[in-house]
Amino acid sequence: MSKSTNIIWHKAAITRERREAKNGHKSIVVWFTGLSGAGKSTLAHAVEDRLHDMGYRTFVLDGDNMRHGLSSDLLFSENDRRENIRRIGEVSRLMMEAGIVTLAACISPYRADRQLVRNSMPLGDFIEIYCRASIETCEARDVKGLYHKARTGQIQNLTGIHSPYEAPENPEMVIDTDKLSVKESVELVINMLSGKLKLLNQDSDCFKTIK
Amino acid sequence: MSKSTNIIWHKAAITRERREAKNGHKSIVVWFTGLSGAGKSTLAHAVEDRLHDMGYRTFVLDGDNMRHGLSSDLLFSENDRRENIRRIGEVSRLMMEAGIVTLAACISPYRADRQLVRNSMPLGDFIEIYCRASIETCEARDVKGLYHKARTGQIQNLTGIHSPYEAPENPEMVIDTDKLSVKESVELVINMLSGKLKLLNQDSDCFKTIK
Repeated sequence: MSKSTNIIWHKAAITRERREAKNGHKSIVVWFTGLSGAGKSTLAHAVEDRLHDMGYRTFVLDGDNMRHGLSSDLLFSENDRRENIRRIGEVSRLMMEAGIVTLAACISPYRADRQLVRNSMPLGDFIEIYCRASIETCEARDVKGLYHKARTGQIQNLTGIHSPYEAPENPEMVIDTDKLSVKESVELVINMLSGKLKLLNQDSDCFKTIK
Repeated sequence: MSKSTNIIWHKAAITRERREAKNGHKSIVVWFTGLSGAGKSTLAHAVEDRLHDMGYRTFVLDGDNMRHGLSSDLLFSENDRRENIRRIGEVSRLMMEAGIVTLAACISPYRADRQLVRNSMPLGDFIEIYCRASIETCEARDVKGLYHKARTGQIQNLTGIHSPYEAPENPEMVIDTDKLSVKESVELVINMLSGKLKLLNQDSDCFKTIK
């Protein structure tokens, strides 16, 4: 076999399963949906803190941050919102494939779009958490000042004010963020995830010496 | 402090540095550029095999695969090619942030686009490897049959035939894939990377018991 034919025949051998074995834990996508101000990012980061301390590889895909990077070419029309969700879904899937417990926090207002993301992943690997808080609570918090801007006509496309939010019908979990503290919410999520993340044993590569 | 104000104040604490410490190694982006058939994917996967066995967390972002997923809405116009590279660059950056040694394999024909990706990352974190093979060699290999399709008019936008490939002027490495075997190429890349990846010591979280 010549060198030049040889180079084109190599096949990939590193799979998600091998990455999970090395890490000592399963990967998964946890998707936080809800109104702006419902506490999605806060909860995702707080859950990440706990998981990291427990030994998991984690990453938070924050909808706001993605708007500055991967989705910087998109605005807030219905089509652009759908495309934004699709991209965050694709990156979540890649991250999961890379062995990471991926925490996506984005409003993702449309049920059909979240379903498309769910369908793109193996059964059971997409965990939807609905961060539920009334529009009144979210508007009272108004961390980013978006509700004020919406009420005074400075922005035109805020979910819950100008465009609909379609609540999940069968999410894996509902967290009432206007009733629970962050600490209480994290406990609920961690307890639910611990059954799904299947920590692997310490024979994993992770515990062997790096050469 | 009320529960509802509490929930919006939490700040993220898990950084790239903490993820690298847990993994026991630095993260980085290695970008393989070159003509179709130059051996980019083959080399990226072969390098991944070696790095995985050495204990690194790795992932290959393959340009062809991305066309089925994240970039499935794009075609092969100059603008769409630029957008494709931009997205692969953004995902590479996120993966690196997540602690992964990220190997991107895509033609990425335009110098300016590769430079934009490089500029989006901290200095020294973007390693460009030019997989160099003559158009004659690539056309003779024609693994995917693209050159045949181009010559017979079935496709209109093949780099090197219908549209230009702008070779890197100062890549971190050039691999002459029409002269070297895959094994020889992998050795060169691994030797070059080993100086940059800075394996951390075994006090990392990776070697502690997962709770």
